[in-house]
Amino acid sequence: MNPLPILGISMGDPASIGPEVTVKAIADPAVTSTCRPIVVGDAEVLRRTIESCGVDLLVHVIDEVENADFADGTLSVYDLGNVDSNELEPGEISAMCGAASFEYVTTNIDLAMRGRIDGTVTGPINKESINLAGHRFSGHTEIYAEQTGTSRYAMLLVEGNLRVVHVSTHVSLREACDLVRKERVLESIELMHDACLQLGIPDPRIGVAGLNPHASDGGLFGDEEQNEILPAIEAARGKGMTVEGPVPSDTLFPKAVGGLYDGCVVMYHDQGHIPFKIVGFDWDREARKMSSVRGVNITLGLPIIRTSVDHGTAMEIAGRNIASADAMKLAIDYAVRLHQARQVT
Amino acid sequence: MNPLPILGISMGDPASIGPEVTVKAIADPAVTSTCRPIVVGDAEVLRRTIESCGVDLLVHVIDEVENADFADGTLSVYDLGNVDSNELEPGEISAMCGAASFEYVTTNIDLAMRGRIDGTVTGPINKESINLAGHRFSGHTEIYAEQTGTSRYAMLLVEGNLRVVHVSTHVSLREACDLVRKERVLESIELMHDACLQLGIPDPRIGVAGLNPHASDGGLFGDEEQNEILPAIEAARGKGMTVEGPVPSDTLFPKAVGGLYDGCVVMYHDQGHIPFKIVGFDWDREARKMSSVRGVNITLGLPIIRTSVDHGTAMEIAGRNIASADAMKLAIDYAVRLHQARQVT
Repeated sequence: MNPLPILGISMGDPASIGPEVTVKAIADPAVTSTCRPIVVGDAEVLRRTIESCGVDLLVHVIDEVENADFADGTLSVYDLGNVDSNELEPGEISAMCGAASFEYVTTNIDLAMRGRIDGTVTGPINKESINLAGHRFSGHTEIYAEQTGTSRYAMLLVEGNLRVVHVSTHVSLREACDLVRKERVLESIELMHDACLQLGIPDPRIGVAGLNPHASDGGLFGDEEQNEILPAIEAARGKGMTVEGPVPSDTLFPKAVGGLYDGCVVMYHDQGHIPFKIVGFDWDREARKMSSVRGVNITLGLPIIRTSVDHGTAMEIAGRNIASADAMKLAIDYAVRLHQARQVT
Repeated sequence: MNPLPILGISMGDPASIGPEVTVKAIADPAVTSTCRPIVVGDAEVLRRTIESCGVDLLVHVIDEVENADFADGTLSVYDLGNVDSNELEPGEISAMCGAASFEYVTTNIDLAMRGRIDGTVTGPINKESINLAGHRFSGHTEIYAEQTGTSRYAMLLVEGNLRVVHVSTHVSLREACDLVRKERVLESIELMHDACLQLGIPDPRIGVAGLNPHASDGGLFGDEEQNEILPAIEAARGKGMTVEGPVPSDTLFPKAVGGLYDGCVVMYHDQGHIPFKIVGFDWDREARKMSSVRGVNITLGLPIIRTSVDHGTAMEIAGRNIASADAMKLAIDYAVRLHQARQVT
C-alpha cells in the first residue's frame, strides 16, 4: 500500500486569509486522512493564526521534510521565518508580505522539483504586494512556469461538473483577442483532454467557446471563429478527440453544468471565471462576504502537481476568522487525486 | 379600476419554437388573468401549432384590435397571412419565415406606436432568416430603435435578482472594447437606474463591471477602467446615483445574485449573458435540451413597452412540442408590470 502523499502547502500572503484557510483545512481530520501536509510559511504567523481561530493544532517547525511530524493535532511548518509578526497588519498590502509569500511559493516548488514532496498546493497571494517586493509576476501560474522551465502550460478550473481551460488569462481583453490563434486553441484543447484523462474521465467530450457574441453568428460579428477556433477544433478531431464548437459562450456553460461537456475551453479570463464563480461562490448579503468559495485551480503541463484555491487574498476579511476553508480543502483533495492518477500511470 | 392591458405578442419565426411558446403561454389562465393578449402572426400556423401541442384554444382572426375577443379559450390573432403553411418546415432557415417574422415585429410596433395596444412582447426571430429576406438587422432591439426613432436605448436582462444592462451587445469583442467610452457607460448606468425605478426599486444600488480581468488590477492589464469606466461612475455619483465599481466581472455576479446590487452594468454581450443564462437556463442531459429558459429581455428607452423571451429560436427542437413557455410567461408578466408602473407615474 502506498503511503499518503506528502503535500507542500504555501500559506499565501501573511496578511491575507491564506494562513487562516490553511490551518482550518489541516485541522480537519478528513483532510489529514488523505494526505500528509506540510506548510511552507512563517511559524509565528501560523501560531498566532491558530490561536486567533481557536483551532486545535500544535506547530512543529522543520527545516527538512524528513523531520515532519504528521501526527493528528500537529502542523508541520517548513519555516522561512520571513515575517516580522509585530509589523504584520491583516489586510494590508506590503512589500514584506509580498516578498514573504513569493518565497513560500518558490521554496515549495523547489521542494517538489527535488522530489521531497509529492505535490504542491497554494494559498492566495496578492499581486500588488508581490509587485511591491519587486517581483514582476501576475500570478502563481507564471511563477510556476518560469521556475519549472515549462512553456506549454495552462490553468484548469474545477468546480463540480465544470472544468475550464483558458486560452489566455492575465492580459487585457484586447490582448486576449489577439491571442486567439489556432495553435494556442489547439494546445488548450489538448491540455483539457489530457486533464480529463488525469482526472479519470475517459474519452472526454470537450466544448470550445467562441470569442464573439453568438460565436460571431456565422461571421456577422468577428472572424476569429472561422479563422482560428474552427481550424483548431478540426485539428483536434483529426487527432481523435471529441470536440464541439465554437459554442456561443453563454449557452456553453449551462450545457457544461448540466453534464453535456466534460471540459470547456474558453478564450479569455472572464469568459471562464464568470460562470465558474457564479456556480462556486455564494454571497452572504447579511455578512457582506462570500459565504462559500468552492473552486479549485490546477496548473496543467507542469512536471509537478500544483493545485490552488481559486479565490483571492480577501484582504477585507483577513484576521476576522470568518473565511471559508472549503476551497483549500478541495484544492488539497484534487492534489491527492492527481497524485493517485500519476501512481496508476 | 383599470382594465387589463392589451399586449401585442409577435409570434416570432414561424419555423421556430415561437408559435409554440406563444400558444402555450396564452393557454395558461394565470397569464390571461393579468392581461389581454393579441398575437401578431399567421393564423394558419397558429392553428396548426395549437393542434400539434394539444392546447385548448380557438383562433379568432382580427384585422382591428377593437375586434379582439379576450374570452378564455380564445386566441385573438392579428393575422398577416404571410406564411404558406404547406411550404413551412419546422427548424428551417428561410427567406419566407424571415420576411414573415420581420413583418410581425414591425406591425406590432406600429400598433403600439398608434396606441392601439398597451405594450409589446416578442417571440424569437432568426437573424439568418431575417437577413435572407433582405433585412439588415442584428436583432429585435435594433428594429425597435429604428422604427420608433429612438437613439438612446438599451437592453435590460432580468432573471430573479439579476438585472443587467449592456454597454454593447451585437458587435465583435474587439469592437466592444472600442465602445467602452465614458459617455456610453454613463448612459448605461442612467438607463439601469431608471429601469430599477420603473420596476419599483427605489434608490437602487448599481454595480459596474470592469472590462479587463480583475478590472485590470490597478492598470496591470488594460486602462479602460481608469480612463473610461471610473470617470463614468464618478459622474453618475455626482448625479446622486448609488454606484460601485469597476467591479471585476467574475465577482460582480455572485454578489448581484446574492442581492448586493439591484442592477449591473456590463461592458459586452457575453459578460452579461454568461451569468444570466447560467442562472436562468437548465440543461436537461437526457433530453439534450434546455429544460428551462427563464429570463426576460426588456428594451429600455423606447416610447413603447417591449419585453421579450431571452432565448433564441431553438430551431433544433421546433415542432416537437417540448419547448418551455416559462420565458414567454415571464416576458408577458414584465410587460404587465411595466404597464402598471407607467400608470402610476
